[in-house]
Amino acid sequence: MEIKFARRTEQMNSSVVRETLKLTAKPDVISFAGGMPAPEVFPVRELQAAMNKVLETSGRVALQYGPTDGYLPLREKIAARHRKAGISCTADDILMISGSQQGLDLAGKLFLDPGDLVVCESPTYTAALSAFRAYECGFLPIDTDDDGMIIEDLERKLAANPRAKVIYVIPTFQNPTGRTWSLERRKGLLKVAEKYALPILEDNPYGDLRYEGEPIPPLKAMDTQGLVIYMGSFSKTLSPGIRLGWILAAPELLQKFNTAKQGADLQASTIMQMVVNTYLEDYDLDANIRKLNALYHKRRDLMLSLLEQEFPKGSSWTHPQGGLFIWVTVPEQIDTAKIMPQVVARKVAYIPGHSFFADGGVTNTLRLNFSNASEEKIITGMKLMGEVLREQV
Amino acid sequence: MEIKFARRTEQMNSSVVRETLKLTAKPDVISFAGGMPAPEVFPVRELQAAMNKVLETSGRVALQYGPTDGYLPLREKIAARHRKAGISCTADDILMISGSQQGLDLAGKLFLDPGDLVVCESPTYTAALSAFRAYECGFLPIDTDDDGMIIEDLERKLAANPRAKVIYVIPTFQNPTGRTWSLERRKGLLKVAEKYALPILEDNPYGDLRYEGEPIPPLKAMDTQGLVIYMGSFSKTLSPGIRLGWILAAPELLQKFNTAKQGADLQASTIMQMVVNTYLEDYDLDANIRKLNALYHKRRDLMLSLLEQEFPKGSSWTHPQGGLFIWVTVPEQIDTAKIMPQVVARKVAYIPGHSFFADGGVTNTLRLNFSNASEEKIITGMKLMGEVLREQV
Repeated sequence: MEIKFARRTEQMNSSVVRETLKLTAKPDVISFAGGMPAPEVFPVRELQAAMNKVLETSGRVALQYGPTDGYLPLREKIAARHRKAGISCTADDILMISGSQQGLDLAGKLFLDPGDLVVCESPTYTAALSAFRAYECGFLPIDTDDDGMIIEDLERKLAANPRAKVIYVIPTFQNPTGRTWSLERRKGLLKVAEKYALPILEDNPYGDLRYEGEPIPPLKAMDTQGLVIYMGSFSKTLSPGIRLGWILAAPELLQKFNTAKQGADLQASTIMQMVVNTYLEDYDLDANIRKLNALYHKRRDLMLSLLEQEFPKGSSWTHPQGGLFIWVTVPEQIDTAKIMPQVVARKVAYIPGHSFFADGGVTNTLRLNFSNASEEKIITGMKLMGEVLREQV
Repeated sequence: MEIKFARRTEQMNSSVVRETLKLTAKPDVISFAGGMPAPEVFPVRELQAAMNKVLETSGRVALQYGPTDGYLPLREKIAARHRKAGISCTADDILMISGSQQGLDLAGKLFLDPGDLVVCESPTYTAALSAFRAYECGFLPIDTDDDGMIIEDLERKLAANPRAKVIYVIPTFQNPTGRTWSLERRKGLLKVAEKYALPILEDNPYGDLRYEGEPIPPLKAMDTQGLVIYMGSFSKTLSPGIRLGWILAAPELLQKFNTAKQGADLQASTIMQMVVNTYLEDYDLDANIRKLNALYHKRRDLMLSLLEQEFPKGSSWTHPQGGLFIWVTVPEQIDTAKIMPQVVARKVAYIPGHSFFADGGVTNTLRLNFSNASEEKIITGMKLMGEVLREQV
């Protein structure tokens, strides 16, 4: 029986990251592929205590439907954290969502008509490309360097492309490069966005994971025109398995996200919102973040030193001050997608770089995650990868 | 700053039910508005025990990312339950989602191009209309009676409307009417769907809530062509606050839902899936369902007798054998949306019927929920509603 699908399904493809995760889920595979936190630093006992408290004191509320906006005490705490970081906001500016990925889908729904263009970094988060593609958009990938998007390239391309509709960026510890935009570039982006009245989706799941250097204000902290839609997440600071993120935006914009969220899945989990709220009341999220930053800092340093030691001459890589990823460029003759099966055969996994480019093309890059694997596994895995790569040159 | 939105946002509106819920969330309001379970029968202690077990034995897995398909042991248990109810399936036919509402959004994304028509019951679930409208579709509402969709009306309208793309139905304890389709109508629908190769979304959140009469097989149990996409939910049998539902469909169709789910929010909550899996291992969901059915049965009977007693002459209503709702038709001169403020002023709430009609029009109907309020509140609320309604005639 031949069922007819919507035209958009021709553009929808399975996420390379998610598919690779499935392939590499076997416990004997050393995976540098996903963006997974280290499970050994999950605050399991603390979250368990918070859950028991919630179910003992307010079980009937926690298991019931709740408002689409989200649980007010949690939204107040999130707003207070943002105020401390320089963003002027209240709970009215916060909508709870089922992980910050959902913010990308809802934004696509609200902003994108077929043929509209999403302005993005080149390279950028592959699952954001997937989320937006479902709305039959095109992309306007902007060149980047160690300081972020190159504003001259942005201006040139915006002038030539009137269908640009929304800007998507990950300014801090970018996925996949790990790079952080300079303050100057951030200001430059805001100025250009204002000129064209383009909303900016600021995706910031990694911002708290800083191991060195000084924090740079998020775009939202400098947003005088209400153009920035900020997406936050508990996935990297607390747990991704609870599926909780939020959108921070001006109330009139947020109302549209609220309507879209209602249709998409009614609301985020009541119980998980209450558990995180209790966790924030009874424990110290910043102490938890310091603990995982200490661990990730060590793993990043280890991976950087192994890159130096094991990867073929002519390779180069980023030096992220935080986050989860290192972006590697290997000698030009190596196609990182083609050699992937050889590396997986030695039970090591990574993500080939091409899927992070909206326009494809680049074949000699790859993304490495350093947060998830133990130091022992990082050493073994990097040596095995290095062997395969060195055989290619 | 004038931000441009996608064209579809012109059709997106906030759910009347969700907005009414916000208005009536005050504890002194007696609400017959939402479709909320009775919180006093939530298995709070059992779910708490399941959570403690999950976090004590597998905390690091529960708090981590998981596969988009969902947690395999839970999918196996859901498939086994469906097999017992006559649907031939395995875990491979199940995709876990964040509440069955998400299934509607994903289906809209996969099937609907602008201008396509969703075939639906008239009246139907208002939040399904909202979910589909985001894909710029139209609707083909089909007349219904106590036995379900009138197949002759369906055939006539399908013959005249080649843009019909997907069929959306709630055959058991329908929302908003509480009616259940006869076996004959179910077979009739399948035959027509096969003729036109139209996929059927079978929404079945209430099927287990039967207080009397014999179960009628779901459409999926009679689906020989793989056209039926069945949506199930734990919201009404266990808890809506955990946000867990599933899609049951042929694997090739399910793969498309999986891709859409990846882009939408990556995956359902790992921890909540594991908690429900442990609950199903350690406790008896059917015993829980029997407990809440006994309670809802009493409340339904009470509300039916109060309708007889308190509502103005010339009113009529459905006699649901299960589910959560009674559908009431009041004398023609009463506009149930217009008198809503008067009823809310007496601190009682319901949902005016017009929002359940894709084509609007009908003004003298309303939906009553009988599962959420205590018997005492049902008596008080129905008397207050009756007073206002009787004043109108």
